[in-house]
Amino acid sequence: MSFTIQNALIPVDSGYETADVQVVNNCISAIAQNLDSAGTVIDGKNKLLLPGFVNAHTHSSEMWQRGIIPPLPLELWIAELYDFTPLDPEQVYLSALGTAVETLLSGGTSVVDHLVLIPGQELETIAAAVRAYQEIGIRAFIGPLIQDESLTAGMPAGDGAIEHAAYIRSTKATLELMETAIKQFHNPEKGVNMLLAPTGIQLCSDALFEGCIDLSDRYNLCRHAHLLETPAQKQLAHEKYGCSAVEHLQKIGYLSPRTSLAHCVWLEDSDIAIMAETGATVVHNPLSNLRLGSGIAPILKYRQAGVNVSFGCDGAASNDSQDLLEAIKIGSILHNITDLDYRQWITPRQSVEMAALGGAKGLNAADEMGSLTVGKKADFVLYDLTSLSLLPRTDPIGLLILGRPTNAVDSVWVNGKQIVAEGKVKTIDVDALRRELFDRSQWSSKRQSQTVSEIEAHYRQVMKLPGYA
Amino acid sequence: MSFTIQNALIPVDSGYETADVQVVNNCISAIAQNLDSAGTVIDGKNKLLLPGFVNAHTHSSEMWQRGIIPPLPLELWIAELYDFTPLDPEQVYLSALGTAVETLLSGGTSVVDHLVLIPGQELETIAAAVRAYQEIGIRAFIGPLIQDESLTAGMPAGDGAIEHAAYIRSTKATLELMETAIKQFHNPEKGVNMLLAPTGIQLCSDALFEGCIDLSDRYNLCRHAHLLETPAQKQLAHEKYGCSAVEHLQKIGYLSPRTSLAHCVWLEDSDIAIMAETGATVVHNPLSNLRLGSGIAPILKYRQAGVNVSFGCDGAASNDSQDLLEAIKIGSILHNITDLDYRQWITPRQSVEMAALGGAKGLNAADEMGSLTVGKKADFVLYDLTSLSLLPRTDPIGLLILGRPTNAVDSVWVNGKQIVAEGKVKTIDVDALRRELFDRSQWSSKRQSQTVSEIEAHYRQVMKLPGYA
Repeated sequence: MSFTIQNALIPVDSGYETADVQVVNNCISAIAQNLDSAGTVIDGKNKLLLPGFVNAHTHSSEMWQRGIIPPLPLELWIAELYDFTPLDPEQVYLSALGTAVETLLSGGTSVVDHLVLIPGQELETIAAAVRAYQEIGIRAFIGPLIQDESLTAGMPAGDGAIEHAAYIRSTKATLELMETAIKQFHNPEKGVNMLLAPTGIQLCSDALFEGCIDLSDRYNLCRHAHLLETPAQKQLAHEKYGCSAVEHLQKIGYLSPRTSLAHCVWLEDSDIAIMAETGATVVHNPLSNLRLGSGIAPILKYRQAGVNVSFGCDGAASNDSQDLLEAIKIGSILHNITDLDYRQWITPRQSVEMAALGGAKGLNAADEMGSLTVGKKADFVLYDLTSLSLLPRTDPIGLLILGRPTNAVDSVWVNGKQIVAEGKVKTIDVDALRRELFDRSQWSSKRQSQTVSEIEAHYRQVMKLPGYA
Repeated sequence: MSFTIQNALIPVDSGYETADVQVVNNCISAIAQNLDSAGTVIDGKNKLLLPGFVNAHTHSSEMWQRGIIPPLPLELWIAELYDFTPLDPEQVYLSALGTAVETLLSGGTSVVDHLVLIPGQELETIAAAVRAYQEIGIRAFIGPLIQDESLTAGMPAGDGAIEHAAYIRSTKATLELMETAIKQFHNPEKGVNMLLAPTGIQLCSDALFEGCIDLSDRYNLCRHAHLLETPAQKQLAHEKYGCSAVEHLQKIGYLSPRTSLAHCVWLEDSDIAIMAETGATVVHNPLSNLRLGSGIAPILKYRQAGVNVSFGCDGAASNDSQDLLEAIKIGSILHNITDLDYRQWITPRQSVEMAALGGAKGLNAADEMGSLTVGKKADFVLYDLTSLSLLPRTDPIGLLILGRPTNAVDSVWVNGKQIVAEGKVKTIDVDALRRELFDRSQWSSKRQSQTVSEIEAHYRQVMKLPGYA
């Protein structure tokens, strides 16, 4: 399959140039002016071509609960989330499609799905997500979300000890499940990559982390986890390890250039130095961090320390969308209030590099994707610069990143295959997806979470919030 | 002109109800189930009806520069903005149309345009904006942006005194110009309201503020201004008055229930008490405050003190869009990181109330608009709940505010007139507007601002930024 995009605007060091881009065998074969047209010709006039972005952390099935969880911090929010989590693999299939559609229509060509597993139907859950991503054609990195401690263990004990129920599955059984899933689903040639993805220090034993390290080494897979999303987690790490979570993860060998860690809000300077030394990637989820009141991740410090940073939407129940351009915008301008010196602020071109190449690096795939480079996979996006939201003509990347692009994505290719054309997803029936989502849900203004009511008093006490006594 | 919207979802205290809404003579005449259909019948099935929001602070002509100004703090950003400001009233007309389109398609029915005037063509500038807003049919509140000190006076002197050029027009001439503009353009019946809107303490003398107070009292008009947007302005106020800006504005009588003040980032608790006491409104512009690194306005404190708060997009060169739903979302969740106690966080229903009724209050119009109430003007919006971005069906207001609605506005009415239908603006030719914006602009990756290079060293010195010596 070959094609040539003619006369697209592409960014170069000195500004912008109009050029042709040729794709042969799923890879970029040439970028230059006035190329001979090979294969199908695509008109790129008045369109901006950029590498595809990576939605570097999400939980697709949260789509079923977006908009409904009230303003709560992570520790209570997650209790409500789990009380109402989808239990039908078909729902997982539909929300994976929805996640992919919104990611594609906001400039993403890859998605990292930290996938919540349905108890007892773990492989069916993964199969449903794989089916969705292969049908729509987005490049998928699926990290089944695993843990071996039960939910209440994720909260600091504070002064009082809490008894935790045993987790539903043994560590050994979970690791065996992961190995089965890897053998069954890991298939990079078909666009599906498996990750090892323990949820984080708050709910995982060292044995689980170490088993994941072993699997990732044996199968050459990337590692993923949440890291220090909230002040409660920071406190918990010190209770659990007597040192910071980052120090502990370094000690057991979890950090590496193949490791990406979501959130990273509550790291100390010494932790940041460890992140830089080990080559681990920070996945910045700014909208979720605001929505859950988690805090502002020290992204400018990461950049100054040489830590690779990418962007994620996080699950749609803590965002509550999958618009990657929104996450990139807010994840860039948010940090202008953290440093008076504007020379440290993230420029729109830097944002694009973080979202594309930064995302690729965090998945150990920088030699295959993340930039418009001859030899890399044809994962890229054409933006329509005649969209009202990208007018008047100023700096196209500046307006794409700092503005609020609406209906701006014209075309998307993943691995050389066109997924979106004229602003519409071509590989699946989006209207049918909308009908399914509509039919399987109902409007509601509130619901009662049993678990939240059980744990709220303890949370307020540990966090020293008013009226806890 | 009468019509009835049938079977729309509307919010009630207990959740949502399906109801009919009847409009007679531009006002809401009835809201109930199974009303007799009066006039045209509109199908509201699977749609959410909400009062129109107020875009309570913007500068429409900044649209011409959106996306192009690099990451800079206000004091340098504004220097670049003014170096390249539009000088043709036809541009003002076009950018006012663009501002209105984006406001309408993100739930707004009113816009407060703090309008930058073209020197020597001040009345022509206002006439161009008035023409645009009347053609498209949005409710307009136009506050010509006036000052009587030149731009460099807006920066603190620090240790060194700076000489400032005299401003291009005398205070007296400016006030005469405002009175002429009021007589010529103030016409609430036709949807155009004039405001008195000195730019702020950083560039205005007491004589100018006092002249504006006099005019607002004599013509019964609202007052507007910027207030304490940046740390530099806070420092300047103390240099200029020996007290806080809020204390000074209270002393000269500028604060009142008819006064709305944009930004309000750097107020002390004592200033907040004055705001509450005087009944002045805070217009929150969260995206601009992040983009320019101005800071986080203490919105939760305002709400706790009983200060009315509304939302604005601010001009499109500091945002860089006019998507009111984006400003509402970020302006709500941003504050979750400022208070550990989630019981203080803004709920989606509170966000709606701030954006609609809060906006109306700040314009002294709460008895006429801002809620779905019998007797109020028919300024409201129908959202399509079958849009993918509002699916699956959960809490419609939760998802509208916390999500990223795309193509979600189905219909908009202002003063009983339908402006938007099936997601398209019906009163102007949006494709023609896009062509004009395209033809009158060109892509560019950078430009040199003479003024920024002249004042940057002083700014870095006053703000004690690295390398200023």
